[in-house]
Amino acid sequence: MNVVHRSIERPPLDIVDGLAECGAATVHEAMGRVGLLQSYMRPIYRGARVAGTAVTVSISPADNWMLHVAVEQCQEGDILVVAPTSLCDAGYFGELLATSLKVRGVRGLVIEAGVRDVAELEEMGFPVWSRFVSAQGTVKATLGSVNVPIVCAGASIAPGDVIVADDDGVMVVPKAKAETALRAARARLEKERQTRERLAAGELGLDIYKMREALAAKGLTYID
Amino acid sequence: MNVVHRSIERPPLDIVDGLAECGAATVHEAMGRVGLLQSYMRPIYRGARVAGTAVTVSISPADNWMLHVAVEQCQEGDILVVAPTSLCDAGYFGELLATSLKVRGVRGLVIEAGVRDVAELEEMGFPVWSRFVSAQGTVKATLGSVNVPIVCAGASIAPGDVIVADDDGVMVVPKAKAETALRAARARLEKERQTRERLAAGELGLDIYKMREALAAKGLTYID
Amino acid sequence: MNVVHRSIERPPLDIVDGLAECGAATVHEAMGRVGLLQSYMRPIYRGARVAGTAVTVSISPADNWMLHVAVEQCQEGDILVVAPTSLCDAGYFGELLATSLKVRGVRGLVIEAGVRDVAELEEMGFPVWSRFVSAQGTVKATLGSVNVPIVCAGASIAPGDVIVADDDGVMVVPKAKAETALRAARARLEKERQTRERLAAGELGLDIYKMREALAAKGLTYID
Amino acid sequence: MNVVHRSIERPPLDIVDGLAECGAATVHEAMGRVGLLQSYMRPIYRGARVAGTAVTVSISPADNWMLHVAVEQCQEGDILVVAPTSLCDAGYFGELLATSLKVRGVRGLVIEAGVRDVAELEEMGFPVWSRFVSAQGTVKATLGSVNVPIVCAGASIAPGDVIVADDDGVMVVPKAKAETALRAARARLEKERQTRERLAAGELGLDIYKMREALAAKGLTYID
Amino acid sequence: MNVVHRSIERPPLDIVDGLAECGAATVHEAMGRVGLLQSYMRPIYRGARVAGTAVTVSISPADNWMLHVAVEQCQEGDILVVAPTSLCDAGYFGELLATSLKVRGVRGLVIEAGVRDVAELEEMGFPVWSRFVSAQGTVKATLGSVNVPIVCAGASIAPGDVIVADDDGVMVVPKAKAETALRAARARLEKERQTRERLAAGELGLDIYKMREALAAKGLTYID
Amino acid sequence: MNVVHRSIERPPLDIVDGLAECGAATVHEAMGRVGLLQSYMRPIYRGARVAGTAVTVSISPADNWMLHVAVEQCQEGDILVVAPTSLCDAGYFGELLATSLKVRGVRGLVIEAGVRDVAELEEMGFPVWSRFVSAQGTVKATLGSVNVPIVCAGASIAPGDVIVADDDGVMVVPKAKAETALRAARARLEKERQTRERLAAGELGLDIYKMREALAAKGLTYID
Repeated sequence: MNVVHRSIERPPLDIVDGLAECGAATVHEAMGRVGLLQSYMRPIYRGARVAGTAVTVSISPADNWMLHVAVEQCQEGDILVVAPTSLCDAGYFGELLATSLKVRGVRGLVIEAGVRDVAELEEMGFPVWSRFVSAQGTVKATLGSVNVPIVCAGASIAPGDVIVADDDGVMVVPKAKAETALRAARARLEKERQTRERLAAGELGLDIYKMREALAAKGLTYID
Repeated sequence: MNVVHRSIERPPLDIVDGLAECGAATVHEAMGRVGLLQSYMRPIYRGARVAGTAVTVSISPADNWMLHVAVEQCQEGDILVVAPTSLCDAGYFGELLATSLKVRGVRGLVIEAGVRDVAELEEMGFPVWSRFVSAQGTVKATLGSVNVPIVCAGASIAPGDVIVADDDGVMVVPKAKAETALRAARARLEKERQTRERLAAGELGLDIYKMREALAAKGLTYID
Repeated sequence: MNVVHRSIERPPLDIVDGLAECGAATVHEAMGRVGLLQSYMRPIYRGARVAGTAVTVSISPADNWMLHVAVEQCQEGDILVVAPTSLCDAGYFGELLATSLKVRGVRGLVIEAGVRDVAELEEMGFPVWSRFVSAQGTVKATLGSVNVPIVCAGASIAPGDVIVADDDGVMVVPKAKAETALRAARARLEKERQTRERLAAGELGLDIYKMREALAAKGLTYID
Repeated sequence: MNVVHRSIERPPLDIVDGLAECGAATVHEAMGRVGLLQSYMRPIYRGARVAGTAVTVSISPADNWMLHVAVEQCQEGDILVVAPTSLCDAGYFGELLATSLKVRGVRGLVIEAGVRDVAELEEMGFPVWSRFVSAQGTVKATLGSVNVPIVCAGASIAPGDVIVADDDGVMVVPKAKAETALRAARARLEKERQTRERLAAGELGLDIYKMREALAAKGLTYID
Repeated sequence: MNVVHRSIERPPLDIVDGLAECGAATVHEAMGRVGLLQSYMRPIYRGARVAGTAVTVSISPADNWMLHVAVEQCQEGDILVVAPTSLCDAGYFGELLATSLKVRGVRGLVIEAGVRDVAELEEMGFPVWSRFVSAQGTVKATLGSVNVPIVCAGASIAPGDVIVADDDGVMVVPKAKAETALRAARARLEKERQTRERLAAGELGLDIYKMREALAAKGLTYID
Repeated sequence: MNVVHRSIERPPLDIVDGLAECGAATVHEAMGRVGLLQSYMRPIYRGARVAGTAVTVSISPADNWMLHVAVEQCQEGDILVVAPTSLCDAGYFGELLATSLKVRGVRGLVIEAGVRDVAELEEMGFPVWSRFVSAQGTVKATLGSVNVPIVCAGASIAPGDVIVADDDGVMVVPKAKAETALRAARARLEKERQTRERLAAGELGLDIYKMREALAAKGLTYID
């Protein structure tokens, strides 16, 4: 059955915004190294770093009908997350849909398929992380679902989960863990700041992280 | 038999230039969604949008001899289109060949193989869409053909066909359809302009395209 | 057995710097077309052109412990070259390790795996050529070796060999051949400069390289 | 936190066995075309058709420690389902682990990574669906979790879900839907039996499925 | 516009059958090394060697409606050749469609997408060369065309062309060249038979093909 | 410079034969998990398990001239190992070359490219491990080298090294380590035999390998 869930629970935007500042790699570490989408999900242009609440779409190959349905479910602070039910590189999304999403305050798109109009999308500052770039058009013939749990690029994503995306890739934070994740990520940033200073001053990671003993215990041999 | 066809029919350049302005995705839609090259054909740098008439080259793996033959067949407004007879990532093309093509008014290269000197090519503004980037050199030992029909990245291309290429990819318009394609593409651009305005004003695609009834008829269920 | 070789022989830095100026494609040709790494090794940002002496690391999948060991073995003019023992796209390396390497005068990283913090790495001007970009973290549990001969992306690399990397890819010059390679590459650059001028003036490669006779002898047929 | 859930709920084995008889493609259709793992999951030998209840393992790249932990959680009728936390082709599993699983009545392995000893596994009749075949060994250094929800090859799998696997691939049926799926799959088989007879007698699908009118309505044109 | 061409010209079946006996590799050589489909087109089971006349289908991603239309256009000696308009791994085809084709004397299927029921297809002796194997179902919503020229897996194929397929892959012989190709292929087979005998008797290819002089002239150096 | 080394040192055949009996996975473990070729190297048919001494060939893309040169350098117990200088899927090798190699007692072929005539090769029992299967022919125009060190599928291979290949893949044992590797592999087989018996009797790996304490120390938590 194909459904559209109109009401989803979203974490507060100040938490979402905090996670954006931390970035995908830091949040990923802070979460215990879970939630990362496959590394073939790449930004269509460099330099964007965003976080938003997921409006999810399960969609047929080469059929973008449900994207129009999904737009109506989006609000300020969302990121649209789209997964086709089988491998597809068609260009589901372009600047018209982006125009519509931007009006509603949507912050970006994550799609395990293709997008087009990438030059226009960069110009209008609407970031997309996709598996493919392709001018190939799609049809509007088959239903899908909006705001159901999906798997996108190997990660399980529920509606309202927080998506964090930047040049390093895309990750998902389950909404129930968003606040904890933010705290852990900020603590990690602070610790990294301190480490960075020591490294920049010439100290070695071997000493800062006290690795020499463990390496020797494992049998690492130095030869002059 | 290896042949070089010296005389090919080309559509007028004003039509070609018109197609460049429309871009690959729009022309692809206007053509009824045919003629797109595979999505692994990527520009070596961002921001180029060109159209030109195809001078085609069928070439052996890792052998760029025929590119030198092809240069002589090129004229103002052409795009060189190259397909090896089997999978190859070698760097067939660099800035010396580009220098030679640029003198003749050639607008770019489409090659289902590798190119090199990509920094220099970007600097001199010679756009290339290729499957690979590679410094690997090639030999000059085996013949091929110039200006014969080829398949490049999954699309059938005849000499004189119009190539439209930008950040979204590469597509081919058969020369006999170039004028019709331009008219259809321009009509589409105008329609898109109007739609864009309405979307930017907050109207939904669901309403503009009158999709709600068809979705309901298919059984789409909204849950609050 | 896991070992770290502390003393490696490096060619003089003026030769290394000379090779950087020539670039990967030219040096590759000058070496007789050997030593190129696979074309899937791509720069994380455009525009870097460096050469350096290889400090090599053989490393376990998704385990970056040995990178910390390797840092201590690096000195001014080095490039860190890392190969996992089986396919892995995890993000082994980020801006903290880059900070540490930069302090020591290391010029870049070549890794047949993933890196992260690519925005930060670009900002700090630390170039990386990698197979993947990924925020995925790694563990510190298994030993590897530093400054042993490795195969990275299909090329055999010994410690102290010269790595030349730019937008066209990465290549390795065995240290014993570095001086010869530089001489040959410079000669090639001079020859290319002359050819470029003639091509820019409108002469054809067919004539400059005197190819017409050989093409005819092979049976190439021109059809008007 | 790394956990092992000792108690999982499994659907009755007679339902599981019924699903095995229907096969992956039929069950997939009966479920409404959801639940299929990516098509790169291939059997290591041809001819096996099994179903079993999932014991799930989330595991580190190139580290098979948790497989030994998982064995103890397996019982008659299970299938072990393993997903590494990032891309890895190492050979996590061979005939020793298979021997141990076979003693416990486990029916097969599904792993989004590599396996080895494939000749021995075929000989002992222990079927495996994997992404890779590789002799590459793994370490035992990092914890993972057993019987937690995982994503394997693009499908979300919970402990106790039913896995159906054959030469066409692998699919998952959520345990709560197993009985319904079986009923629907059997109905489909019966319907297919009838259709097969009519097709074998020379009737056309166009007529059996009454497609001619719909095709004409869409505008399909026949040309003699 | 979507069309079905009912009348296509086919070469005589005795020529087609002769080409089957020669096999894909021999015919490919006899044709001057053109007409091969990409090497990712693999047989779903080993040991089939067939030739047939192409009934071509251009089809939408994950939509197999037109296959039912195409069945009616098939006759004794045909091979169905199917290309989706963009990358798709869905399972378009299974044993029901094969039953229908077999009744009509169709010899096999070539499809640049997925198939399913591969165990059943092997059992009934209906060979398929495909890019993917997948249980994923398809819809029946969008038109395509039958018996138009298509590009399948990188080769240009017209209706009525001869398809030759075996364990080495798939190739196409334009119908106008079928007779010439058969003569050339048979001559090649006879020559290979003679060469095989001499090689089996211990003669070297170096001597049979008289390569030593050419190798020496190119500068090949033997070192004892 | 292109050279053919006529004299290479080979380890005794009884050691080579011993390694064949142990198989690729066991020898790989016994060597400390080094020397494996990439997992995309697959046997063209199932069931072969061989070892032999490497005659190496560095070869141009789509040019098999040097294979004829290499045949003459082969003797009883050898395996031909071939690596092109850039990515290539052409079918370099078929049953004629295999006939010639078989006469000389060569045991198989390892090639990081394509082969053809795979049905015939299986029939004559000449095993091949390759990256591709393709009917695509090659030319004879460019020199390469025989019996020089090469990198094949990511592994460094010197002439005379021992190649061990079976359904799990291909690995290389440097000739100086062949005897040690055999001893270690046999010890490992014996140990595995004992473990297998205990596992078959129902003991758990957790207990045999005494893992429970280490798992608990790392923090693994069991939940009932």
